[in-house]
Amino acid sequence: MGHVKLFIPGPVEVSRKTFEAFCRPMVGHRSKDFQELYASIQPRLREAFRTTRPVYLSTSSAWGVMEAAIRNLVRGKVLNCMSGAFSDKWYDVSVRCGREAVKCQVEWGKPITGELVDRHLSAGGFDAVTLIHNETSTGTMNPLADVAEAVRRHPDVMLIVDTVSSFSVLPIEPEKLGIDVMLTGSQKALALPPGLALFTLSQRALDRAAQVPARGYYFDFVEFHANAEKNMTISTPSIGHINALKSKLEDIFEEGLENRYERHRRNNAMVRKWAKERGFELFPEPGYESLSLTCIRNNRNLDLPAVNKALKEKHGFLIDGGYGKLKGQTFRISNMGDETEETMGALLRALDDVIG
Amino acid sequence: MGHVKLFIPGPVEVSRKTFEAFCRPMVGHRSKDFQELYASIQPRLREAFRTTRPVYLSTSSAWGVMEAAIRNLVRGKVLNCMSGAFSDKWYDVSVRCGREAVKCQVEWGKPITGELVDRHLSAGGFDAVTLIHNETSTGTMNPLADVAEAVRRHPDVMLIVDTVSSFSVLPIEPEKLGIDVMLTGSQKALALPPGLALFTLSQRALDRAAQVPARGYYFDFVEFHANAEKNMTISTPSIGHINALKSKLEDIFEEGLENRYERHRRNNAMVRKWAKERGFELFPEPGYESLSLTCIRNNRNLDLPAVNKALKEKHGFLIDGGYGKLKGQTFRISNMGDETEETMGALLRALDDVIG
Repeated sequence: MGHVKLFIPGPVEVSRKTFEAFCRPMVGHRSKDFQELYASIQPRLREAFRTTRPVYLSTSSAWGVMEAAIRNLVRGKVLNCMSGAFSDKWYDVSVRCGREAVKCQVEWGKPITGELVDRHLSAGGFDAVTLIHNETSTGTMNPLADVAEAVRRHPDVMLIVDTVSSFSVLPIEPEKLGIDVMLTGSQKALALPPGLALFTLSQRALDRAAQVPARGYYFDFVEFHANAEKNMTISTPSIGHINALKSKLEDIFEEGLENRYERHRRNNAMVRKWAKERGFELFPEPGYESLSLTCIRNNRNLDLPAVNKALKEKHGFLIDGGYGKLKGQTFRISNMGDETEETMGALLRALDDVIG
Repeated sequence: MGHVKLFIPGPVEVSRKTFEAFCRPMVGHRSKDFQELYASIQPRLREAFRTTRPVYLSTSSAWGVMEAAIRNLVRGKVLNCMSGAFSDKWYDVSVRCGREAVKCQVEWGKPITGELVDRHLSAGGFDAVTLIHNETSTGTMNPLADVAEAVRRHPDVMLIVDTVSSFSVLPIEPEKLGIDVMLTGSQKALALPPGLALFTLSQRALDRAAQVPARGYYFDFVEFHANAEKNMTISTPSIGHINALKSKLEDIFEEGLENRYERHRRNNAMVRKWAKERGFELFPEPGYESLSLTCIRNNRNLDLPAVNKALKEKHGFLIDGGYGKLKGQTFRISNMGDETEETMGALLRALDDVIG
């Protein structure tokens, strides 16, 4: 079996150029060479994050930073916005960190609205809200600006936003929106191999963290910041990922951020159009469909494992057959990363061939 | 400047073959392909760890698992054996996790002995002992069997051993010695890129963890085990590292574990002999010198930054100029990973050329 190209919602296809950077010779992580590498990517990284603040690098998956946000910012009570497998799990993780977690639950596929968050926060006493901007399991994109506005009405409440599958797909303005923690992973729209998480913090998040006891070390926000000031990381980082990130930032700024957003929007529209023309319904509530991936209701009762098998064997492509409790009931097609109209078109033609 | 070959005590040189595996195309981490990859490396990984128990993979540096061991096994009091920069820091990390940490401190370069540990543990009430087998900052190898025997005299005390820079350099028998957590990193003797930690747990460590509250998720030992039983990982792992690890295990078992130990012993002896013949003293107390790296006292008052600069520019090699408070007073030469008598000989000749 040759190379199978992934159109699953992460990890996605990694380019040859990225892999070449991933394999650059190692350098000592306490050396000037490393400090130069670290410093060299910060300007573009901040521009991609649309922030003036440092962007921190965590050698972990995004879950590490999602948990860290709880450990660093929540002493008492946290409101977890829940609308899919990953956001539901964030509640579970908050509980496992020994925090008082409160559910703000909607049906999978429905959006988390500002009004709903505001109503929950009105009970008072919350340290933070967690929100997954783009719930990857359902292909639903929450109205972030609306939620952020609601959170801002509660001045002591921090806003923690997972942009794992939305970062660099569309513009997100952490400082303008008042996001206190904005995090993403490497293997989604950045199209790097998995193994690195990236995040930025507001000043008040750093100040709060400094007051929270038993934060530990590996995910201590204060340590992240102290090391970043020296262009270093808390402990030995995944240097390969940082080299790959540098290469990817070259690609992103060669294309232009705005062009990148537009490409994702266009490719996503192609998939939605394809789905509707083939008689499929989209899973999310209309108006809240993700721009990163399309979660399609399997209303034609396809044998999804058979479809994926044929797609893989005949065309060398792979899509996703539904996550968790939606397995078999939905399928998901990612348009994240380096995909073009041409490559998305090739996938959709292959799907037509297989579905018949 | 061309490729600089690292003889620092990690990260070390990564082979072409390893890098090729590092760049294998991605697979979905919840796919059968991933489960097969995960399962395929377990037998050799367990053999390399000299254990019959699972070997867990953490997408983090070793510090993540070092902290995890505290969070999972220590409710009250932990004894931190301290004899260098990294073991000293483990005390600090224990404190930062909100645990009652007790110092078992010796001078840098001196060994941690069983007698010393036994004396501390006799105060009673300890949940665990942390020990760094090979303290990388001082090139000192602690008498692990002796310490393990002492800990076994205190039946409720868990033994947590960092083998970051000793794993696969010499045989270590976790089950025979009663080690409850044995962990290592990818970028030392395994000669993989940094970004992955590996560890094994005793059954009683798993049982204890299940009783400790607020363990969180990302480093929860119980979750590691539950996922391992399905040949999966807690969250999206660094798939590149796992592919590279599979390739490295092929290398290790092609060479043979015993031959690998012997090669490290022989290469290490070459460096020690070279140092002594050039009028240098070794830093560690005699009898406790590391087999992975040689920490050499700079008793000839070399200008170490100048030496390293010339070594790099003229020969394309890099050694280490001393860690933390030993910077300038010692230099360290690693013989970890894929090095041979020939490659170590080339380094030592280059050093002669530079030192004059």
